[in-house]
Amino acid sequence: MKLIGIVGGVGPFAGLDLTTKIFTQTLAGRDQEHLPVALLSFPGRIADRTEYLLGRVQDNPASAVTEIILQLEKLGATVVGIPCNTMHADPIFGVIEQNLQEQGSSIRLLNMISEVASFIVTEFQGLEKIGILSTTGTWEKEIYGRVLEGNGLIPVSPLQDAQQQIHAAIYDGSYGIKARSHPVTQRARNQLVRGLRHLKDRGAQAIVLGCTEISYALPYHMLEDLPLFDATAILARSLIAQSYPEKLKPLKESGFDFNSISGR
Amino acid sequence: MKLIGIVGGVGPFAGLDLTTKIFTQTLAGRDQEHLPVALLSFPGRIADRTEYLLGRVQDNPASAVTEIILQLEKLGATVVGIPCNTMHADPIFGVIEQNLQEQGSSIRLLNMISEVASFIVTEFQGLEKIGILSTTGTWEKEIYGRVLEGNGLIPVSPLQDAQQQIHAAIYDGSYGIKARSHPVTQRARNQLVRGLRHLKDRGAQAIVLGCTEISYALPYHMLEDLPLFDATAILARSLIAQSYPEKLKPLKESGFDFNSISGR
Repeated sequence: MKLIGIVGGVGPFAGLDLTTKIFTQTLAGRDQEHLPVALLSFPGRIADRTEYLLGRVQDNPASAVTEIILQLEKLGATVVGIPCNTMHADPIFGVIEQNLQEQGSSIRLLNMISEVASFIVTEFQGLEKIGILSTTGTWEKEIYGRVLEGNGLIPVSPLQDAQQQIHAAIYDGSYGIKARSHPVTQRARNQLVRGLRHLKDRGAQAIVLGCTEISYALPYHMLEDLPLFDATAILARSLIAQSYPEKLKPLKESGFDFNSISGR
Repeated sequence: MKLIGIVGGVGPFAGLDLTTKIFTQTLAGRDQEHLPVALLSFPGRIADRTEYLLGRVQDNPASAVTEIILQLEKLGATVVGIPCNTMHADPIFGVIEQNLQEQGSSIRLLNMISEVASFIVTEFQGLEKIGILSTTGTWEKEIYGRVLEGNGLIPVSPLQDAQQQIHAAIYDGSYGIKARSHPVTQRARNQLVRGLRHLKDRGAQAIVLGCTEISYALPYHMLEDLPLFDATAILARSLIAQSYPEKLKPLKESGFDFNSISGR
């Protein structure tokens, strides 16, 4: 049995969202045909990743995440994903990879950012300019920008004022998605849609939803005539492809079927 | 760290639903304040519980579920729940409890059916006649009936014709919830609402949603003036109460606040 492992808790709902997307991207007619998945959601153990990147806490969340990945490996996991974009910043993700190597781990840790870039390049050859909707942490560290460039794509980022509005839609204590997600407030949603239009004005032909909270708020495949690439859903597809490729839903049943832009 | 364990996979979406309800019933202002939860969703290992109860397969799903619970215990789980009503039939649940005892396990396995009955008795003293909306397997084995009676309540079951319609809303291969859950079909929903009216006509003062699929289809707290008791949400509250009672959302913020009937 090949087991898919998920590092949950960053945040708790993002772990659930990734698990849901693994199930909905799987070809299965009855319970027994679904894939084996272990979700370890231990949020209290993991230091805040944004606080760490900003130098406000000393404790690198990489240590706790490494321990959790080793627990998943002990359960039998052969492949693992972390549904948090900020965790993919080099000072954290690089340390996790190094820790795993030092511990002699043979688990395959997928990099969500690389998976998104190679998904776009492989499946949608016509696309070039990709807008990125994310937190300010991801924006500042250019987590997507450098990986997209490495894959021959042109990243399109918001200007500072627009970025602040996007960040507030996620983090604001009164109307942001982290504070009010059931349901998302109209104000948060509107600010994200304005961010998306801003990226379109700047030339983006498609948008990466590069923050797990944005996926809840904009659960669409297209918006403002732009294809939306949900990073969590792409990671879900990669985890399936790496473990049970025969069970992966074909692209045309996956929601990622942008005929108008792929030219197919 | 006290860890909450969940036996997922029966079915996969019910495991997710229980995990979601643990998170939404928890008092938490930020990621780190959420509770540690491990979800092991291994559906391929677990023999079909209804087929077993009907004598169509020999393999008791209790064996696989026991192994999964022991894996959860090894991870550090002190309390565990199984979000599947049919698994609580005596020939399965009784065997799991016996296996755990024989293995010297000290994990606390909650019984979802008993938790529902004691929740109703403790929190809603005015109620007496409780209708049960469930699969035909749960109906035939009187899984709820006997436990409700043991708690001094009067169970109200559908007559056979109505029960068939309720069961079909869950299991029908073309329109049932197991076949089409995203979204649930109007036909499945209508048949469940008719079942609910039938139980009201038979004197029910409140309804137990005694099948995890029914909770997706009827995500309400009241319907047709009847309070709905979602067994999965009650199990979620019990798991929190057994591990981190100080983190349990008060009843009046939980959705279970039926002022009109509780007389409070």
